[in-house]
Amino acid sequence: MKYWNNTLKSMDEYIPGEQPDNLNEFIKLNTNENPFPPFPGVLKAINDNLNEGLRRYPDPKAANLRKIFAEQNDIKPEQVFVGNGSDEIFTLIFRGFIETTDIAAFPYPSYSLYDTLAQGNGIKYEKINLDSHMKLDLEKFLEKKYKMVIISNPNNPTGTFFEHKEIENFIKQYTGLLVVDEAYIDFYGGSSIDLIKKFDNIIITRSFSKSYSLAGLRVGLAIACEDIINGLHKLKDSYNVDTLALAGAAAALLDTKSFNYNISMLRSNKEYLEDMLSNMGFETVPSKANFIFTRHKDIQAETLYEKLKEQKILVRHFSGPIQSDYVRISIGTMMEIKQLCAGLKSILEEV
Amino acid sequence: MKYWNNTLKSMDEYIPGEQPDNLNEFIKLNTNENPFPPFPGVLKAINDNLNEGLRRYPDPKAANLRKIFAEQNDIKPEQVFVGNGSDEIFTLIFRGFIETTDIAAFPYPSYSLYDTLAQGNGIKYEKINLDSHMKLDLEKFLEKKYKMVIISNPNNPTGTFFEHKEIENFIKQYTGLLVVDEAYIDFYGGSSIDLIKKFDNIIITRSFSKSYSLAGLRVGLAIACEDIINGLHKLKDSYNVDTLALAGAAAALLDTKSFNYNISMLRSNKEYLEDMLSNMGFETVPSKANFIFTRHKDIQAETLYEKLKEQKILVRHFSGPIQSDYVRISIGTMMEIKQLCAGLKSILEEV
Repeated sequence: MKYWNNTLKSMDEYIPGEQPDNLNEFIKLNTNENPFPPFPGVLKAINDNLNEGLRRYPDPKAANLRKIFAEQNDIKPEQVFVGNGSDEIFTLIFRGFIETTDIAAFPYPSYSLYDTLAQGNGIKYEKINLDSHMKLDLEKFLEKKYKMVIISNPNNPTGTFFEHKEIENFIKQYTGLLVVDEAYIDFYGGSSIDLIKKFDNIIITRSFSKSYSLAGLRVGLAIACEDIINGLHKLKDSYNVDTLALAGAAAALLDTKSFNYNISMLRSNKEYLEDMLSNMGFETVPSKANFIFTRHKDIQAETLYEKLKEQKILVRHFSGPIQSDYVRISIGTMMEIKQLCAGLKSILEEV
Repeated sequence: MKYWNNTLKSMDEYIPGEQPDNLNEFIKLNTNENPFPPFPGVLKAINDNLNEGLRRYPDPKAANLRKIFAEQNDIKPEQVFVGNGSDEIFTLIFRGFIETTDIAAFPYPSYSLYDTLAQGNGIKYEKINLDSHMKLDLEKFLEKKYKMVIISNPNNPTGTFFEHKEIENFIKQYTGLLVVDEAYIDFYGGSSIDLIKKFDNIIITRSFSKSYSLAGLRVGLAIACEDIINGLHKLKDSYNVDTLALAGAAAALLDTKSFNYNISMLRSNKEYLEDMLSNMGFETVPSKANFIFTRHKDIQAETLYEKLKEQKILVRHFSGPIQSDYVRISIGTMMEIKQLCAGLKSILEEV
């Protein structure tokens, strides 16, 4: 660490979900990837760009993708920013919209990348615990002068949801910058995007990794007032999203039929899994995402994770005082869910 | 700029080369893109990955691409880092390997993105002017305690080159971190990669945008000692390079035959352009890159740029005390060069 600066030395490393080398032997329900393939039109749009044009730099302002998203959401393209995954957007937010002397705040547990990115940019932060129902009164963020609050909605890893009126009620009273990470919003709706028209201190982020089955492409969006979007453009690397990713994401937005079909299949699979888990005695947190957070009184969550891994089924287990009792399971295909349930049943019979 | 922090407010915006909307009507020689298409094997490798697998996250450690590059360069994969273009790598270097209380240094003129990124990360820097031959004695960077020195080799926008022995002689005496941006090294060789085996304070960066005709994909490399590469991995976003870009870049490295053929065509086009410019009375700085830096005593560089643009030919003109006398012209296809020369001739006849 001879040439590392203090920020790099002191930060914790973010640990992404496991990707075993023999990935194809596993049922992988640990990183909330979508079980269904990308839409056919997406693959075609990428293929249409697979030509001489790749020798050129991509459009640094991602004009086409922003225009399509803006039209679909009744906002202006100037209110939309395209990032190399929403990860890049969070990094840019920490770099450009809070001073190192200020304090940010997030719920706990939430997406642990916020901690890593805050640390990696020298930003101090505090965390406010969810209650035993994995819920939180947002007004708790008003008790101190937090300059930035980040919530994921639905919340990862719990799947719990802040209603639109809760967020609107909070932003009416809050004078810092509120970031609402809507990576999982598409599965059950309830977006706060409309609030950017009334409030200049809210940033919504979106991802193509989950509801559009495009984790491999790396595209995320930020939606906010023009002033904030201009700042993100000023700070980002010139060519942050590649030509093929821009083309694929645009085609994904346009194929609303495949999108709606996949969402409804995902929801139906999720409800099936919730029923099966309930029948086996699991206690599952009500979720509005493509994953569930669940526990069983007869077996420790970490043991459950390990025994499933022995069966080549990967789920996610987090350490920490609240979340360590639970496993997070991404919703898979019906076949994957049935194998998971058979695995769980055999594990519970052994206990 | 209500929610912008001081760093974002005070930084200058980087201005990438123009991309007119009616791009296809232009001969575009302003951003050093390669005039030849990506290798056929690259398009095939991307196409082979254009499937269900895109719903999965990419390999966060880019193992395959690092292994191939390491084998070709007789180094270890642990000494190679893959970034979302070399732009991301420079950003990470400023974020992780220098304190905001330290001072960095670059030659002037050089790649102006260094200034933007240093400013965007709150890093102070100084610049040391090239001499009238666009050369610089690197020992000038030893006169003050600079914690980081960044040189581009060949230098952009001048095309001038630091010999291996100049860099080795400098690093022997320098105790800060030296970054050598080799975005343009492939055209005439002379890399400093071997120095990472002897010195732990040198980072080499590479790009697939120029010599591999893949500006649209966004892939760059950093090569350094393991300790620095580990730091870059700790700081980067988990999934910073997408699946298709990783596959395309790996295939590009493996197709050494197409690579060598394109490099030799490029060099031959460059020599032809240099001869033509010399015949027209231009004074051209000796270049080891895929662009040239040239001026003519009878016409101001800015006027030349504007008159070429009227003819739908884009070259680059920079403001600044040294470089404003020159235009930078990327090497195009033979047809593009001939149109450029015809354009220049007609402009000079008017003067």
